[in-house]
Amino acid sequence: MTTESLKFPVIGSDALKTAFRMHASGVAIITSHDDDGNPIGFTATSVTSLGSNPPLVSFNIARGSSSYPQLIVGREVALHTLSAKNLELAQRMAGPKEERFTQGDFELVGKLPVFPAASAVLIGKVRERLEVEANAVVILDVLHGTEQLEQERPLVYYQRGYLTATERLADNS
Amino acid sequence: MTTESLKFPVIGSDALKTAFRMHASGVAIITSHDDDGNPIGFTATSVTSLGSNPPLVSFNIARGSSSYPQLIVGREVALHTLSAKNLELAQRMAGPKEERFTQGDFELVGKLPVFPAASAVLIGKVRERLEVEANAVVILDVLHGTEQLEQERPLVYYQRGYLTATERLADNS
Repeated sequence: MTTESLKFPVIGSDALKTAFRMHASGVAIITSHDDDGNPIGFTATSVTSLGSNPPLVSFNIARGSSSYPQLIVGREVALHTLSAKNLELAQRMAGPKEERFTQGDFELVGKLPVFPAASAVLIGKVRERLEVEANAVVILDVLHGTEQLEQERPLVYYQRGYLTATERLADNS
Repeated sequence: MTTESLKFPVIGSDALKTAFRMHASGVAIITSHDDDGNPIGFTATSVTSLGSNPPLVSFNIARGSSSYPQLIVGREVALHTLSAKNLELAQRMAGPKEERFTQGDFELVGKLPVFPAASAVLIGKVRERLEVEANAVVILDVLHGTEQLEQERPLVYYQRGYLTATERLADNS
């Protein structure tokens, strides 16, 4: 146990980028609506569970994002998990805003746009927004969701591209 | 666009579990030390970037976890990204606490235990802890990190097991 072999020469945001290039993320889509009922949504790679009692989900968003002002406390949100089959949807929802809801592949659940092709859909409500510098952690209360589907190949973001995970290494015993 | 085909019959924490079974996560290890300088650490699947200016990272932890009282504001933390090669390390750091630092495969950087076998290491300091019910979102200020390695196969958690992602579907153009 010495410190001889370890060096940390990369500083600040460059260090963050270097490390996160090596970190895979699951790909999800968040949708909601604005005050006029127009659908909004985007691809997110920061979706994570924040405990099951009560059931909570968190994701991160830039406060400068056009979606952020719509994600007010109490607003309903649909969280979609994605499989390899949903690659085009993930790319579209990360692309130009005006093209995101033009394919007719969503349904309205009340005012909430939902993509049935997703591997799972979770409906929640914004509970709290924790603002940190130029970003925010958005916490959702989970309300209800779709039934379990058969296993799919998950869509993963890694090294600036989309992959799927197929090689199972070990079960969590 | 009708609501006929979409049903959300699964409620609350069951809905959360059902959806997150379909969501892949990158696997990381968080380490730090207690007030007496003893190493602490655990496997985390909730690590995500929270903006690059300033560079911030977040992860979620149960407030009842034995590590949580040690992750005080200002405490140094090492975040390790993992590749498929690090499977045993990921399993060990998710297993019994008394077995986590017994293999002699970490180095001390000051008081901070660091595993050189990780695909990348990021050193940060706890900036803020956002407590939500029984859990907390821990925000780290990123200080510095290791240099970029060659591309590895990332370690991914999905469907209660460890996978690696190898099949590249698309680059983010």
